Amino acid sequence: MSVTAAQGFSAAGVAAGIKSNGNPDVALIVNNGPRRSAAGVFTSNRVKAAPVVWSEQVLRVGTVSAVVLNSGGANACTGPEGFQDTRATAEKVAASLAGHRSGEVAVASTGLIGVRLPMDKLLPGVEAAAAELSTDGGEKAAVAIKTTDSVHKTAVVEGDGWTVGGMAKGAGMLAPGLATMLVVLTTDADLDSAALDKALRAATRVTFDRVDSDGCMSTNDTVLLLSSGASGTAPEYAAFADAVRQVCDDLARQLIGDAEGASKDIRIDVINAASEDDAVEAGRSIARNNLLKCAIHGEDPNWGRVLSAIGTTSAAFEPNRVNVAINGVWVCKDGAIGADREAVDMRGREVVITTDLAAGGQSATLWANDLTAEYVHENSAYSS
Amino acid sequence: MSVTAAQGFSAAGVAAGIKSNGNPDVALIVNNGPRRSAAGVFTSNRVKAAPVVWSEQVLRVGTVSAVVLNSGGANACTGPEGFQDTRATAEKVAASLAGHRSGEVAVASTGLIGVRLPMDKLLPGVEAAAAELSTDGGEKAAVAIKTTDSVHKTAVVEGDGWTVGGMAKGAGMLAPGLATMLVVLTTDADLDSAALDKALRAATRVTFDRVDSDGCMSTNDTVLLLSSGASGTAPEYAAFADAVRQVCDDLARQLIGDAEGASKDIRIDVINAASEDDAVEAGRSIARNNLLKCAIHGEDPNWGRVLSAIGTTSAAFEPNRVNVAINGVWVCKDGAIGADREAVDMRGREVVITTDLAAGGQSATLWANDLTAEYVHENSAYSS
Repeated sequence: MSVTAAQGFSAAGVAAGIKSNGNPDVALIVNNGPRRSAAGVFTSNRVKAAPVVWSEQVLRVGTVSAVVLNSGGANACTGPEGFQDTRATAEKVAASLAGHRSGEVAVASTGLIGVRLPMDKLLPGVEAAAAELSTDGGEKAAVAIKTTDSVHKTAVVEGDGWTVGGMAKGAGMLAPGLATMLVVLTTDADLDSAALDKALRAATRVTFDRVDSDGCMSTNDTVLLLSSGASGTAPEYAAFADAVRQVCDDLARQLIGDAEGASKDIRIDVINAASEDDAVEAGRSIARNNLLKCAIHGEDPNWGRVLSAIGTTSAAFEPNRVNVAINGVWVCKDGAIGADREAVDMRGREVVITTDLAAGGQSATLWANDLTAEYVHENSAYSS
Repeated sequence: MSVTAAQGFSAAGVAAGIKSNGNPDVALIVNNGPRRSAAGVFTSNRVKAAPVVWSEQVLRVGTVSAVVLNSGGANACTGPEGFQDTRATAEKVAASLAGHRSGEVAVASTGLIGVRLPMDKLLPGVEAAAAELSTDGGEKAAVAIKTTDSVHKTAVVEGDGWTVGGMAKGAGMLAPGLATMLVVLTTDADLDSAALDKALRAATRVTFDRVDSDGCMSTNDTVLLLSSGASGTAPEYAAFADAVRQVCDDLARQLIGDAEGASKDIRIDVINAASEDDAVEAGRSIARNNLLKCAIHGEDPNWGRVLSAIGTTSAAFEPNRVNVAINGVWVCKDGAIGADREAVDMRGREVVITTDLAAGGQSATLWANDLTAEYVHENSAYSS
């Protein structure tokens, strides 16, 4: 269902030959209206890919009529020529469709940084995708944006007479500073860009922004939310925002579940923090600790690595009051030895680390992965 | 030669049975005077091991007559009982030697966090070490502090009538915030604690503080510098500080060369930065980027990962002016594609990444390691 679950959208995914293995690599999503309101959040990395720079400009106006995405190349660090490639791609979309202007076409790319896109393959691919647009093309679009993803990722939440759906890709370089990876959400709820923007930012802040697979922030992270208004229904903001958050949460969880080389999904709950920011800072330091990530891989409830991680943060806590539970067993009490670590069962894919800062009433949940030999292999054996 | 290269020191290393494999695990270093001035720098991790808390107190007075070190257990996150264990260890040293007070005995521990030390083995080990003290015991002491180190690490620099020598251990959890790992330096130069402190801080700032093997800061990092004054020579400060820096640099380089599972030593030169702080911040972001560390392991000159890393920092630079060389080949020019990446030869153990921020005249060098399946194995297959 993906991005065509909501009324008013058509999509397609085709193989343009950008990927050497012949897999689909160009996706096109078209908003057939009547509305074309949109919101977007992008990577906070200061090194931004050309399509991010382009799409930020498009979003400034708040109207997006189509989104074109390619895998097989990030078009990042490609200089002025790379930006011209992005512009040419948007222009090709406008030329291939009736009633579209290139300035309203968002572009997203993913793949290797520092390589030009093969425009002789991409532009015909855009034309082919335009020819295959369909109101049930959402799955094909989701497949076409995969890179090292092993599965494509989609989610849908139904409201009362309206729908929010979406697709995502992302398997590595997964530590968004604002948004994550490539995500396109669509809705037929009849809402303007300001409402979309508010709901999208509220949702990404507690979903994609709290995913940290490998501590590495991408140059290409893009999350778009488009509204066709085709349901003719204008929902209450709270209900709509909740649906957007649910879709983002679902997709974010799928990203972690399919991260490069991972064998564990680690849920990091930081509780009783003095502030939400403290909880997130402590959680992120845990999420990025390579030694802890290795220990989790080895099913070793090595809580000392949790304490050494939070000790590097500025979060408010007293080291001798912190408690840590792993899968519900409080192995660290008051900063020292707690329950028997042998009591911890870590055989499942999901591992929950609960860190009680004993410093207040705020909390946050982050998601991370373990560090494995397979991650090293995937990221050392070839360029990606 | 190690810590007994300078006159006025005796040392020993013995196997007390703390390590299950029967390897040496207790080291003792005694300053026989006439001076007993000392300086120390410790981890900036807020979760500090009991021996760090103890030794910081000892150093506040500025007199250290002996240092006792154990491997096989970090005595971190062990609560008030762990602190009593440290105190008992210092008291045992004082009781085993004539003319020593426990308040002048520094203690250092290394090993697994969150486990109590076996005092029934450690205290007899201290007694055995005291009985074996020798003015050529420096090597044995250096061997006894190893954990996952594959070799013991020592260094000596001779001045004009005086000597600075030292030993170090450290192979993982190697990203000091102030000092690193366990390091003891000794000198017979006739200098007071203030001069030692100044020279030690100046040296660690540009050596141990710029080593970042795995981004994980220890709870136990300790660097001590003891002076016996036994040479009767009071060198110029500049010459002495230079010797201390050389010994620290040598030991820091040995730490990186023996880091857990590493197959590459990565020298990160950040040049033309607006400030030294900017250069260090950019360098550290490069040093900690798991994807780049994997690429270096795979001998892939993946400069896009360098740019994506520095893009997360607040260092002053324009993304489209940055240049990156790998082993001397400028693969990134003006933030975009530069020389042919095929021209980069990465077969050697040492890899040099030069990042030109084109923003000023400051620079910094950091050292890091690649990320390997062996690192994952060493840190997941058993507790450490």
